Amino acid sequence: MKAVAEIQVIPIGVGVSVRAEVMRAHKLIKDSGLIVQLHSYGTNVEGELDVILDTIRKIHEVLHEEGVPRLATSIKLGTRIDKEPDLAGKLFEV
Amino acid sequence: MKAVAEIQVIPIGVGVSVRAEVMRAHKLIKDSGLIVQLHSYGTNVEGELDVILDTIRKIHEVLHEEGVPRLATSIKLGTRIDKEPDLAGKLFEV
Amino acid sequence: MKAVAEIQVIPIGVGVSVRAEVMRAHKLIKDSGLIVQLHSYGTNVEGELDVILDTIRKIHEVLHEEGVPRLATSIKLGTRIDKEPDLAGKLFEV
Amino acid sequence: MKAVAEIQVIPIGVGVSVRAEVMRAHKLIKDSGLIVQLHSYGTNVEGELDVILDTIRKIHEVLHEEGVPRLATSIKLGTRIDKEPDLAGKLFEV
Repeated sequence: MKAVAEIQVIPIGVGVSVRAEVMRAHKLIKDSGLIVQLHSYGTNVEGELDVILDTIRKIHEVLHEEGVPRLATSIKLGTRIDKEPDLAGKLFEV
Repeated sequence: MKAVAEIQVIPIGVGVSVRAEVMRAHKLIKDSGLIVQLHSYGTNVEGELDVILDTIRKIHEVLHEEGVPRLATSIKLGTRIDKEPDLAGKLFEV
Repeated sequence: MKAVAEIQVIPIGVGVSVRAEVMRAHKLIKDSGLIVQLHSYGTNVEGELDVILDTIRKIHEVLHEEGVPRLATSIKLGTRIDKEPDLAGKLFEV
Repeated sequence: MKAVAEIQVIPIGVGVSVRAEVMRAHKLIKDSGLIVQLHSYGTNVEGELDVILDTIRKIHEVLHEEGVPRLATSIKLGTRIDKEPDLAGKLFEV
């Protein structure tokens, strides 16, 4: 099933600046092969729902392996059956 | 990996009342075997990350199969490696 | 205008445990006079929209005054004109 | 106090397409004088916290006056005291 989503990762316990960890999460999202749109409040993605969910799992696994003690991720997930969901269409809607 | 999450499903295109669809999503979450806490703004869950992500996928699949035209799901996902994440601990923190 | 909301405060830069800061935010919400329901992923509130927004402003002001360097707050806000929005009704819906 | 935020408005009870209502909300945000960045999952804003909160109130008031029966708004709000929060800085961080 095709889906769109917004993924925002908040690392906790790494200090006030979270730049390196957010960069790392965004890199993992880009490497997933999903269509990606970066903005100031997260990364919007478009693609197969299974790939989106697997990418979320991978972000948590990899960042913890690399030492981030705690992660709070905020995800918005959109699917529809009247037509294919896509990021461009959502943007055009506005 | 163990995780906690909050899952809130917003059905779009089913009218002003979304009672039946939210009930259906909550039933699917309960059937997942995860530890579940229902509240007015979603369902909090505790369990294996893989089961949580699979339950989210199932909600979208089943509700669309049953005719809901569009779904906007909001998910908060928490993991940590300094200790096991759990819902009771998060509540106790407050 | 009457509204319901969920308020989740994530303090950044205070370490892995955020207990004291989340407790402080919840105390400020309780002191606002809003109807309050605490759960593991935030505090649900019911009351006048103006009071809800003012409480959110106060949380950021007070926690920063008390030394929290950075705050990421996640808010879900619900209003409707077909009937009065209330937390109990949302729960009953499920 | 200066703040950054993401505002996403989900109209409920207007059908599967929510284009007109989301356009209307975005127009109200642009008219607020805040720095604005539109993306597929909402509008990011930068400016005074009071103006941001007042804009959120206005969106709910105006859209209901214009007939939208129910609104679910999702807001992420960021403030910090170690330096001025800004959208460009958050983007640069990634």
